[in-house]
Amino acid sequence: MASVWNRGLKFSIFGESHGKAIGVVVDNLPSGFEIDFDKIKSFTKRRVQASFKFGCAMRCEPDEFEILSGIFEGKTTGSPVCAVAFNKKINSKPYEKLKNLLRPGHADYTAFKRYGGFNDFRGAGHLSGRLTAALVFVGALCEQLLAHKNIKCFAHISSVGKVVDSSFLDEKFSNGGCLLNLDEAKKNAVVVLNKKIIPEIEAEVKKHSEQGNSIGGVVECAIFGVEAGVGSPMFDRIENYLADLIFAIPAVKGIEFGLGFEAARLTGLENNDEFIVENGSIKTKTNNCGGVLGGISTGMPIVFKVAIKPTPTIFKEQQFVNIKTLEQSVLCFEGNHDSCIVLRAVVVVEAVANIAMVSQLLNQGLF
Amino acid sequence: MASVWNRGLKFSIFGESHGKAIGVVVDNLPSGFEIDFDKIKSFTKRRVQASFKFGCAMRCEPDEFEILSGIFEGKTTGSPVCAVAFNKKINSKPYEKLKNLLRPGHADYTAFKRYGGFNDFRGAGHLSGRLTAALVFVGALCEQLLAHKNIKCFAHISSVGKVVDSSFLDEKFSNGGCLLNLDEAKKNAVVVLNKKIIPEIEAEVKKHSEQGNSIGGVVECAIFGVEAGVGSPMFDRIENYLADLIFAIPAVKGIEFGLGFEAARLTGLENNDEFIVENGSIKTKTNNCGGVLGGISTGMPIVFKVAIKPTPTIFKEQQFVNIKTLEQSVLCFEGNHDSCIVLRAVVVVEAVANIAMVSQLLNQGLF
Amino acid sequence: MASVWNRGLKFSIFGESHGKAIGVVVDNLPSGFEIDFDKIKSFTKRRVQASFKFGCAMRCEPDEFEILSGIFEGKTTGSPVCAVAFNKKINSKPYEKLKNLLRPGHADYTAFKRYGGFNDFRGAGHLSGRLTAALVFVGALCEQLLAHKNIKCFAHISSVGKVVDSSFLDEKFSNGGCLLNLDEAKKNAVVVLNKKIIPEIEAEVKKHSEQGNSIGGVVECAIFGVEAGVGSPMFDRIENYLADLIFAIPAVKGIEFGLGFEAARLTGLENNDEFIVENGSIKTKTNNCGGVLGGISTGMPIVFKVAIKPTPTIFKEQQFVNIKTLEQSVLCFEGNHDSCIVLRAVVVVEAVANIAMVSQLLNQGLF
Amino acid sequence: MASVWNRGLKFSIFGESHGKAIGVVVDNLPSGFEIDFDKIKSFTKRRVQASFKFGCAMRCEPDEFEILSGIFEGKTTGSPVCAVAFNKKINSKPYEKLKNLLRPGHADYTAFKRYGGFNDFRGAGHLSGRLTAALVFVGALCEQLLAHKNIKCFAHISSVGKVVDSSFLDEKFSNGGCLLNLDEAKKNAVVVLNKKIIPEIEAEVKKHSEQGNSIGGVVECAIFGVEAGVGSPMFDRIENYLADLIFAIPAVKGIEFGLGFEAARLTGLENNDEFIVENGSIKTKTNNCGGVLGGISTGMPIVFKVAIKPTPTIFKEQQFVNIKTLEQSVLCFEGNHDSCIVLRAVVVVEAVANIAMVSQLLNQGLF
Repeated sequence: MASVWNRGLKFSIFGESHGKAIGVVVDNLPSGFEIDFDKIKSFTKRRVQASFKFGCAMRCEPDEFEILSGIFEGKTTGSPVCAVAFNKKINSKPYEKLKNLLRPGHADYTAFKRYGGFNDFRGAGHLSGRLTAALVFVGALCEQLLAHKNIKCFAHISSVGKVVDSSFLDEKFSNGGCLLNLDEAKKNAVVVLNKKIIPEIEAEVKKHSEQGNSIGGVVECAIFGVEAGVGSPMFDRIENYLADLIFAIPAVKGIEFGLGFEAARLTGLENNDEFIVENGSIKTKTNNCGGVLGGISTGMPIVFKVAIKPTPTIFKEQQFVNIKTLEQSVLCFEGNHDSCIVLRAVVVVEAVANIAMVSQLLNQGLF
Repeated sequence: MASVWNRGLKFSIFGESHGKAIGVVVDNLPSGFEIDFDKIKSFTKRRVQASFKFGCAMRCEPDEFEILSGIFEGKTTGSPVCAVAFNKKINSKPYEKLKNLLRPGHADYTAFKRYGGFNDFRGAGHLSGRLTAALVFVGALCEQLLAHKNIKCFAHISSVGKVVDSSFLDEKFSNGGCLLNLDEAKKNAVVVLNKKIIPEIEAEVKKHSEQGNSIGGVVECAIFGVEAGVGSPMFDRIENYLADLIFAIPAVKGIEFGLGFEAARLTGLENNDEFIVENGSIKTKTNNCGGVLGGISTGMPIVFKVAIKPTPTIFKEQQFVNIKTLEQSVLCFEGNHDSCIVLRAVVVVEAVANIAMVSQLLNQGLF
Repeated sequence: MASVWNRGLKFSIFGESHGKAIGVVVDNLPSGFEIDFDKIKSFTKRRVQASFKFGCAMRCEPDEFEILSGIFEGKTTGSPVCAVAFNKKINSKPYEKLKNLLRPGHADYTAFKRYGGFNDFRGAGHLSGRLTAALVFVGALCEQLLAHKNIKCFAHISSVGKVVDSSFLDEKFSNGGCLLNLDEAKKNAVVVLNKKIIPEIEAEVKKHSEQGNSIGGVVECAIFGVEAGVGSPMFDRIENYLADLIFAIPAVKGIEFGLGFEAARLTGLENNDEFIVENGSIKTKTNNCGGVLGGISTGMPIVFKVAIKPTPTIFKEQQFVNIKTLEQSVLCFEGNHDSCIVLRAVVVVEAVANIAMVSQLLNQGLF
Repeated sequence: MASVWNRGLKFSIFGESHGKAIGVVVDNLPSGFEIDFDKIKSFTKRRVQASFKFGCAMRCEPDEFEILSGIFEGKTTGSPVCAVAFNKKINSKPYEKLKNLLRPGHADYTAFKRYGGFNDFRGAGHLSGRLTAALVFVGALCEQLLAHKNIKCFAHISSVGKVVDSSFLDEKFSNGGCLLNLDEAKKNAVVVLNKKIIPEIEAEVKKHSEQGNSIGGVVECAIFGVEAGVGSPMFDRIENYLADLIFAIPAVKGIEFGLGFEAARLTGLENNDEFIVENGSIKTKTNNCGGVLGGISTGMPIVFKVAIKPTPTIFKEQQFVNIKTLEQSVLCFEGNHDSCIVLRAVVVVEAVANIAMVSQLLNQGLF
């Protein structure tokens, strides 16, 4: 196993859900960048706020990171930044009776097989969604670096169940418009482009929550302000870095760029983005490609969508297997749970977009 | 830029569409594996056969690789294998008049910006789809290594435009059934699970071809025979390796695992795969997750889908921009082209699946 | 900068001499290995004990590591191990007046230029010898993994100034003899093969210490128990891994394998190690090559020597430059210092040998 | 095994001594650099010229590289450069009778154990010194990139047996003086700083050659023109990159920086380089540290020495073992051989210095 990212930026994530702490060491950061700790805090806080909104999930950690190294007199030193969040609200009791039970949709079985049963199974251990807090911290750092390049990432809920939001592929966003409104939108627990659908989403989440069920959704993200010419063909594409980071988020089942799977049903004439000249500079008329051609940025917003599966933890009768005895049994648990992780995934996806861009820029010597 | 794969297996792809040659150096292969060169040939030949079927594309290279190193007396030595395919059928003339024209849907503009105009633009140079021949060669090598582990990859056309094939998520494939038929299916230019739709696909391709247009599609791939416990959480997931390799294929716009984006519309109860015991061993009743939980294999077939955009080269009027003069003009080219690259993409996706699995197994010390 | 090791084993070192903490995240460890924490403690303690012996150096940190992750119920889980040692005995005052003074032999100037003056200069910050404590921790972990393979590393003082110890190239060690004595020898602050020279070394160190001067030396290390066939040609040689890790130790100026620089003065007939058969197995008569041919282990002990420069901190008049004013001045400081870091370097070199071997074995799938 | 360099610059070396070809793929080169092919030829030719001087070695390949990709209209495109040198003068006959004989000082035994006997043993296969020709090609490319930064590398024979040349640590070189003479010196087969010792070296080599014996030596190399602040602490030091590349040269047994092992016998007062101000800029009075402090360049010439063992191939009676039968026998071969590879190693060391510097500069975004 290697929880190590090593493409331009380098970082190493550690920790378990019910261990002492989670954290990350970030290496290869440029020196001399002033860090606004309040902004980092408000970025990382967004991951938890969605849960509070709908009655707290099983566990509400504050996700407060203590910085152990790499920042001196408020600025990056160029040496590795280590950030740690100690686990405070651990209740491992429920996991004791789950110990040998393979829960549907969870990684209990696969982690057991991978690590010979030596993995810390409590709360999914190192495979827990809690580890995304470390990704969010790195993303919060990267957001501040990108601000110096006028690059901004925005993620929002594209859909929850069948409720669908507007898209960054719509014409008005292609020009980088509406960015102010987006800053406002981020303050909500339910981050969407079209405010009017917030009640619909809340109703959808509440409905499934009350039924002891859960619901999946899609997150869309755009990166604004990237000039044409960033990225590389083959394995260092804009898409590769984003996909590689996105799949580190436990519940992700798919990623698509621009029109994505819809493009697969179109003709070339429908899908091609024609080149035009506007105010003396080259751009594309539409942004069906999602701002990337040949793995390299076109100068238009980079737009991608991420499929998030419904939370596997539900309070319905399901078939379990005991890995030690191989007994099958039908069980139904009770308690609190996060019935729609899409809401929390928004900030993680946004964090990842920031990381991917810093990685690309570092690779090309642009910091 | 780095056309280097360095995750377990290591390889470095080189070459340009209209240069002397394309090829690859493959490092970190285990020693002592007998290589069947005829099988390699028939694997790499599949990439071109689809084009021949529908009237040849712009260029029909035989994709014959000469091996310069790393194999001795028919077996891998453990030292790097270099394979080269010399470009034979180059006609760079059409690209001379295209030199400064930015073609919609192509990487002319982005590559120009990335490399300061020094890239070999003829036939898209290093960004050409032709480079996937090198991926296919590596995949052909890996297929033979995986045969020793009883692991087999199969890709097929899942859809072309609106014509849709059966899926590996269907129950009968979950048990590894029907594999014999699949070997048969691979011999066709149009590789599908459900033979009956071949004429429909051919008609769909022909229709768009005759209109000077092109059509996109989806490729589905399954990896059979992987035991539970292969892969790692975070950045070394089954999904990460597959996504990273898949996005090296120029026309790919998306990837999803199991139900993928469909899962985003489902509830937990609908999407969860219940665990059962069959013949004394643990498996899941359904395979909605696509054989992966927590980035690690469940023992069920690993199933993923890839969105392929329609070929950008079409013979319709489109707006072009001249990068030197910034003049806009409406142009319509004529000639031959590959109106549906989905047919050729099948073998590339299958190659990539083989590479991803060898990489994972090498990482875990399983070769 | 990247304080990241990524060759088989993966680890990321962080921290500054006068910051909150130093530490390391170690990834890619095999799961299920029982960890003896007392052994780790006694390994890491060896780095400090030498200093205590000769009157304490400027600072005597206990080097006690707290483990934040990756170990569950006493065994490695397979997920990353994070270990942190909080800095306790920090006195940054002396560094305030040194702030802009470039000390001879120190990295003040080069770090300033590298990081634009944003580095934490107190106590050399991330460039401090204190960071070797993290290497020692990783080495202590690796020592326990290697015990399962009957591989053992031993480092000793080969020379301090002109006082010279015996060598692992001597015949009796080639057979793996005398290992018991070595365990005894490790308990001393002055670790040597030939006990009789301990007083001479102590006298040498004391002499230079009293004069406010310092003295360099050589550390020799042997790795016993590695079978023939470990390592790879070109960039994954036994030598590459060892050299790459050894040069992470701040005061190292050179490394040589077997006869090393002496071999450069010999003829082929003198230097070649003849092959012989002993008890049915192949070995070499002598071990001039230091147990490595073509980057791969011969089965004989792997032996290398490391040159350690004299501590640059001395209490003699020297010329300093002020980096801000460019003024030159002759200064002479007073206080305590470590007049011979060779004594402390022994355990760091040994740690590094353990890390290099685990890395090689992981690379070859031997764990 | 991995013959892959992946630190800033990325390249992958392939080929066997008696196979079809040797070569290299170089990735991550900046685009738009004009390449002077004649200069590359004269650089690579230096590796063979020394052999011709003293009667040809066993084999005299012209080392002419054909470039298959990555250069377009005389300039680097930014896509990977593949260069191949086909083996022309192969005579594998002598190796047939050697097949199972373990030659003293050669890697026959270790390669056999590493690759299970599947390695191409003819002429040492991939472990042959012939592979250094690929390193030299990469170095020749890098030399041209560095010329744009006014960085120049020079290697020379520091000693052969007991004949010793001047050193780059001498005061006159510290100021970058005498560089013109160095260009002259490179034209000789015997590259030294002090021309007067050429006859002595020739006599030394001749003597051992006539006796069927061989002799080792030391190569010294300096890198001029590197500003202060290049390199990083820990694993990305100037020393790490150089050591990692240097040990890829088969006969190397040691490397030291500045005074190296001599520093280990000195006191701090003797070894420290005092800082001074000269013409308004900071430098050190002496260069005992070899231009590196804390892994980072000081602005003075970077100076290191490399120990080269005597050629193991000699024509004296030696003990061999047959790996199949385990029989021992005393044998003495006859023929031509390279009795002093130090002469050829000079250009390889110089190539490596160029590669290391380009790698460092790429890492820091300085290209």
